[in-house]
Amino acid sequence: MQEFDIIDSFFRTRSHQRRDVEVGIGDDCAVTQVPEGQSLCTTTDTLVEGVHFPKDTPVQAIAEKAMAVNLSDLAAMGAEPAWVSLSLSLPEVDECWLNAFSNGIQQMCEYYGVQLIGGDTVRGPLSITITAQGFVPNEQALTRSHARPGDWLYVTGTLGDAGLALDYLNGKRQLPLNARNEVLTRFQTPTPRVLTGTALRRIASSCIDVSDGLVADLHHILHASGCGASIQLEKLPLSEAMRASVSEEDAFEYALNSGDDYELLFTVSEEQKGNLELALAAACVSATCIGQLNGKTGKVELRHGEQPYSSRGHGYEHFS
Amino acid sequence: MQEFDIIDSFFRTRSHQRRDVEVGIGDDCAVTQVPEGQSLCTTTDTLVEGVHFPKDTPVQAIAEKAMAVNLSDLAAMGAEPAWVSLSLSLPEVDECWLNAFSNGIQQMCEYYGVQLIGGDTVRGPLSITITAQGFVPNEQALTRSHARPGDWLYVTGTLGDAGLALDYLNGKRQLPLNARNEVLTRFQTPTPRVLTGTALRRIASSCIDVSDGLVADLHHILHASGCGASIQLEKLPLSEAMRASVSEEDAFEYALNSGDDYELLFTVSEEQKGNLELALAAACVSATCIGQLNGKTGKVELRHGEQPYSSRGHGYEHFS
Repeated sequence: MQEFDIIDSFFRTRSHQRRDVEVGIGDDCAVTQVPEGQSLCTTTDTLVEGVHFPKDTPVQAIAEKAMAVNLSDLAAMGAEPAWVSLSLSLPEVDECWLNAFSNGIQQMCEYYGVQLIGGDTVRGPLSITITAQGFVPNEQALTRSHARPGDWLYVTGTLGDAGLALDYLNGKRQLPLNARNEVLTRFQTPTPRVLTGTALRRIASSCIDVSDGLVADLHHILHASGCGASIQLEKLPLSEAMRASVSEEDAFEYALNSGDDYELLFTVSEEQKGNLELALAAACVSATCIGQLNGKTGKVELRHGEQPYSSRGHGYEHFS
Repeated sequence: MQEFDIIDSFFRTRSHQRRDVEVGIGDDCAVTQVPEGQSLCTTTDTLVEGVHFPKDTPVQAIAEKAMAVNLSDLAAMGAEPAWVSLSLSLPEVDECWLNAFSNGIQQMCEYYGVQLIGGDTVRGPLSITITAQGFVPNEQALTRSHARPGDWLYVTGTLGDAGLALDYLNGKRQLPLNARNEVLTRFQTPTPRVLTGTALRRIASSCIDVSDGLVADLHHILHASGCGASIQLEKLPLSEAMRASVSEEDAFEYALNSGDDYELLFTVSEEQKGNLELALAAACVSATCIGQLNGKTGKVELRHGEQPYSSRGHGYEHFS
């Protein structure tokens, strides 16, 4: 089977269609229209087998995760997803595999109203690169660089579950059955916080998605904004599965330093706290205040009650 | 060295800057502005070591080729390049390698007025995925689907040189020194025909870039437009290096069936031939008429003078 046959058979005809796509899969480029008054947001993420997902990950979960990590970046800018391009490196043509993979991509496209507009298929070790594009109204993109001392620090959902799942998969930890299913879902098919991201426009002073770990990703905001932060550990949102499976200290470590949760970490000024509550309620999403920013540039202070706390870990480092 | 250090050190600070980029490297997404009245063109291409370039290819040439193949897709739509995103899969952090690679990317960005707006760095087998974005005035994109019987078939530059270079690199063919240098340059650092692409707006009825081979890529136009075509072999544009190195028959085979030339193949109606000549002269580029389209859907007839000609090859197939 040739490259164009693969794209035609497995991706082109099944794709969710949008009216702002003039030319989709099957030409040299996709041709699309960005609405007036909107900025274009673009992000690219690659998942490599054995690095970003274990070798025995279900195929559809690989596809869903590849989509989710990119949509999560759009969410972190407050953008509405629109189009994705897919570059797929495959060791061989396995129609059963391609069918399941395409299903995963298409289901995510349908759910988030996104169209697959193009891509490339090459022979090589299994890896998936997706480029996602979306819109945000002009001047409303949520960057990392506008947090200010005094702003409150929030995070969506719960933290550390994906890291716990990875330790389970690597045989480093046993888990009770119901906890196992819960955290494996978090790891294999994370939920990009798209609705929350758009709800935070004009409200959050900065935003990032938690991919490398809470502390590591917080450092990106602090670095870009020239601030420091303190985190109250007892406020860290932990899942039932996490609480049931590990000690409090271990739970803190997962929540602080394990990656792949794809929750949104954002800051809100004192004046915007009321608007935040209204916006989250209107979008039917929730977030937890876990700390506050200060002027101690680049420093993250961890506190448990009134006591300083020292963490063991440093987040996920790609080449460490 | 961590992912963000790599991006910061080797790509962010050196990047060519454009005024339509509001947020570049260093946030969750790039944020950019598409000009009013313009459509957005997007393309993605991946190069894998050992598949798309030999293991001992100079690093800067790898970077330049990865850029060129994407800019070539924009050229084939008549688009003006604007931004690129880079996903780099690396087996290890080699600062010398990264430095040379970054130089190659940045030189191409400078030359074509393109800004590197983001990317991802992952640990894995060496491969490079670039997503390129550009603009074309609304309704002026050069697709594959509007060729008509009677249209004339043109190609830019010369054909087959990259294929000849690949056979030399693989030890299948000896080449005289001056021919060798000429065709190796064509293979390692192909020139995307960006100026020609924009000059063809409103003139060409269809356009594609020759990446898989003349006949294979012509079939994409014929398939999309519901036409057939005849090619006059004696009109195929051949380089001095090609003529000096191989028999006429072998030269025809390279020109018809070898890939990686990244010339533009396009069709022009009889009425637009005069405008084509004016536009090519104004842009200081040239193209050769090599045949004509007809109504025999999907068929490519090869002729040498008045005689039918039978070719041995079938172009580059990614999974054959």
